[in-house]
Amino acid sequence: MAQITKKNYLCNKITMIKEIIEGKIKKGENVQIKGWVRNKRSSKIGIYFLSIYDGSCFNSLQVIAGNKLKNYKSEISILTTGCSVKVVGTIQKSLGSKQKFDLFSEDIKVFGFVKNPEKYPISPKNHSFEYLRKVSHLRSRTNFIGAVMRIRNTLFQEIHNFLCKDGYIWISSPIITTLNAEGAGKMFRVSTLNLLNITKNDYKKINFSKDFFGQESFLTVSGQLNNESYACSLGKVYSFGPAFRAENSNTSRHLSEFWMVEPEAAFLNLEEIIHTSERMLKHLFNSVLEKREDDLKFFYEKVDKKIISRLEKFVYSNFVHVEYTEVVKILKRCDQNLFNTKITWGMELSVEHERYLTENYFMSPIIVKNHPKEIKAFYMRLNEDNKTVASMDVLFPKVGELIGGSQREERLNELDKRLSITGLSKKEYSWYRDLRKYGTVPHSGFGLGFDRLVICSTGIKNIRESIPFPRTPSNAKF
Amino acid sequence: MAQITKKNYLCNKITMIKEIIEGKIKKGENVQIKGWVRNKRSSKIGIYFLSIYDGSCFNSLQVIAGNKLKNYKSEISILTTGCSVKVVGTIQKSLGSKQKFDLFSEDIKVFGFVKNPEKYPISPKNHSFEYLRKVSHLRSRTNFIGAVMRIRNTLFQEIHNFLCKDGYIWISSPIITTLNAEGAGKMFRVSTLNLLNITKNDYKKINFSKDFFGQESFLTVSGQLNNESYACSLGKVYSFGPAFRAENSNTSRHLSEFWMVEPEAAFLNLEEIIHTSERMLKHLFNSVLEKREDDLKFFYEKVDKKIISRLEKFVYSNFVHVEYTEVVKILKRCDQNLFNTKITWGMELSVEHERYLTENYFMSPIIVKNHPKEIKAFYMRLNEDNKTVASMDVLFPKVGELIGGSQREERLNELDKRLSITGLSKKEYSWYRDLRKYGTVPHSGFGLGFDRLVICSTGIKNIRESIPFPRTPSNAKF
Repeated sequence: MAQITKKNYLCNKITMIKEIIEGKIKKGENVQIKGWVRNKRSSKIGIYFLSIYDGSCFNSLQVIAGNKLKNYKSEISILTTGCSVKVVGTIQKSLGSKQKFDLFSEDIKVFGFVKNPEKYPISPKNHSFEYLRKVSHLRSRTNFIGAVMRIRNTLFQEIHNFLCKDGYIWISSPIITTLNAEGAGKMFRVSTLNLLNITKNDYKKINFSKDFFGQESFLTVSGQLNNESYACSLGKVYSFGPAFRAENSNTSRHLSEFWMVEPEAAFLNLEEIIHTSERMLKHLFNSVLEKREDDLKFFYEKVDKKIISRLEKFVYSNFVHVEYTEVVKILKRCDQNLFNTKITWGMELSVEHERYLTENYFMSPIIVKNHPKEIKAFYMRLNEDNKTVASMDVLFPKVGELIGGSQREERLNELDKRLSITGLSKKEYSWYRDLRKYGTVPHSGFGLGFDRLVICSTGIKNIRESIPFPRTPSNAKF
Repeated sequence: MAQITKKNYLCNKITMIKEIIEGKIKKGENVQIKGWVRNKRSSKIGIYFLSIYDGSCFNSLQVIAGNKLKNYKSEISILTTGCSVKVVGTIQKSLGSKQKFDLFSEDIKVFGFVKNPEKYPISPKNHSFEYLRKVSHLRSRTNFIGAVMRIRNTLFQEIHNFLCKDGYIWISSPIITTLNAEGAGKMFRVSTLNLLNITKNDYKKINFSKDFFGQESFLTVSGQLNNESYACSLGKVYSFGPAFRAENSNTSRHLSEFWMVEPEAAFLNLEEIIHTSERMLKHLFNSVLEKREDDLKFFYEKVDKKIISRLEKFVYSNFVHVEYTEVVKILKRCDQNLFNTKITWGMELSVEHERYLTENYFMSPIIVKNHPKEIKAFYMRLNEDNKTVASMDVLFPKVGELIGGSQREERLNELDKRLSITGLSKKEYSWYRDLRKYGTVPHSGFGLGFDRLVICSTGIKNIRESIPFPRTPSNAKF
């Protein structure tokens, strides 16, 4: 920053508003900023105060535009919310109390006006989330979505940082798959077949041999099985990409296209992968607290008065670790009128059970482990009791399941038993079985729903606000 | 590392082989490693030398297994390539010349043997790439694929690091799209329709209103248009994810599913985005040289004697910047028998032209800019000559196009003209047009084919070796 001089704007250096607000530019220095008008106030003495944002941070910069500017009347006076400008001027101590620094402008260039400002979809008034989703291409201009996306970015970058430091190697697990998933959810078909001319084989089934990949193909629901292949050679790996569920669930916690990070580590057992997941989450919440203070302040003020204290609690107190069997006992001891479904050992926890445990009973994130084998996937390692598997679900207040993971079954004979009981074909999983035939190792992993993590980190209510362009049933616009 | 003591292996700390090879563990220290047998030699004096790898780096660690080990005869003597082990022992200076440190074992536990070692698909002999693709679930156990994947990871992490430092915010652009792309390539359809019961509307067209998203949906070919929406509010953004082309191209440079990083920056013009792309590439090649020395050495020795000097040249010399019009003149001056196609102004460069320019004429990466508008997409900014657009292609020796980018057309009237000439509907692109109606700004961006970058950085010949599980026509196995 030391090199910033009067000449800077001549050589076209753009100063980010973040740098000015954080006090990294000295008083009296000449800078050039580029951004958009958040709003405009006029004073009686022939001055306009423009709030300019450029996306680099939550706060806007106050620009003082005096009537000596050559386009004061022709352009500055008709600026409205959303117009784009370049401002050249000098940093000065602010006379107002809301901000430390102002930019006193010497030259303002308007790049683009807003046509028909009265019809501008992102006018400065409050808009409903439902309305904003209809203008998803413009909603990132709001304070709200801008703040979400900066926090989302911080979480994303810090996941990579954490896993890299821990020795994990990023791999791209495939998105298009021919493996019909292990009951994780309904899948989307990927095809180039001409729908007006579908051919069938002798058994009146679709002839997929003519499709692009020569067999029926889908969008992945999880990269885990592929990741296991790489963990069994590179040790610690992770994938981080989109995953898909073709479920018709119109809830505030489900997306048809969502992002998931899936670490997979050779030689780690259940307890060790639980420890990794907890360390990672604490690192992430701490990063948001440290790096996104301005955005968090907004959520504290406008969305959720408890967001900061909750994040601090996530960082500083240990999560509750509890056995599935113990959880069922706790729920059975409750007033049974609390729940629509009466719990018995062997059932999956429903949303109401999860919420009760995290929000009322423990009032904390909880890690439930060792579930009955019948309600978990075939690849989870059978425990010695022969009834439960080495599973783990991390449940959060308000959000429910944030992470699901397990130690994987590394014993070929046990895996084969589970494949057979689950009705899956040994042949289809032959490559997965190979990992157990050739130098098998104990290994574990988990999947973290990234968009739900954004909910946890902001206090927002609906997952549709956690991602730029949400895909849900009947909606893949933009 | 200072805390490593005799007690370490009791508390289950796993030391990465990388740490030992890099000399971060002191001689005489007791450690525990976990990994797989690369190979085994025996000596006449009752000792086995085991090469153990764990994926953390290219080189294996030599483990000395003496005949005092309790399972020397029962297990150590029958170990073969691919078996998985835990070794507890002491770091000592190596007596051999190939490595600095050995691990003298005190205890070796075998996790998994290789069943029928003579049939092990990844036996220590050389395998063809075609063969290895048939065992993609095991091929990361080879030195070759392991080295590619570590370099791929370094490139991936450094792209994020570079763009973050430059002020870019990562956004997830959607994978499923209803926008039928701007001629960028054939698309895969995403659907949940029952193919045995396709319904048609009155015009005998498919009734997509019953499909999952209520209209015909595809896999994205590029996140650019979505990224533009976010650049026009957050300033600098980038997406980094999978993209898809349903082209039947069985070449060594094409994948049906590939990874692409797409930065998009408000307020940058063509020259500035070219500068960004060149700085980024130099940073990436430099990172590979600095951080993946061991893996690069392997490619130098086994694949391409010029890989290191070429990467150094990429880092230290400037890329050639050249106008499309100039390139055509150069090609016209050549012996016309060199090419199958005679070049004229207005044509796209073909692969033979690109190779001649980068490998024979300039012998360098080149950035070709300002192409005729007729051969480029509608969104590129029209230049003042009214004939060319503000485009840029970065071409590399051997690989061809690595990056394609442009300054975008920010003027609504010019954009509308181009939409109309290209035969695209104003209605379908209405949201994209909105970005020009409301505070439009000059902006630019590019897309970098990540898997091709891996080719450039390793010297490998075929893009199918650059990604864990390649998807190509008729192949989406594993």
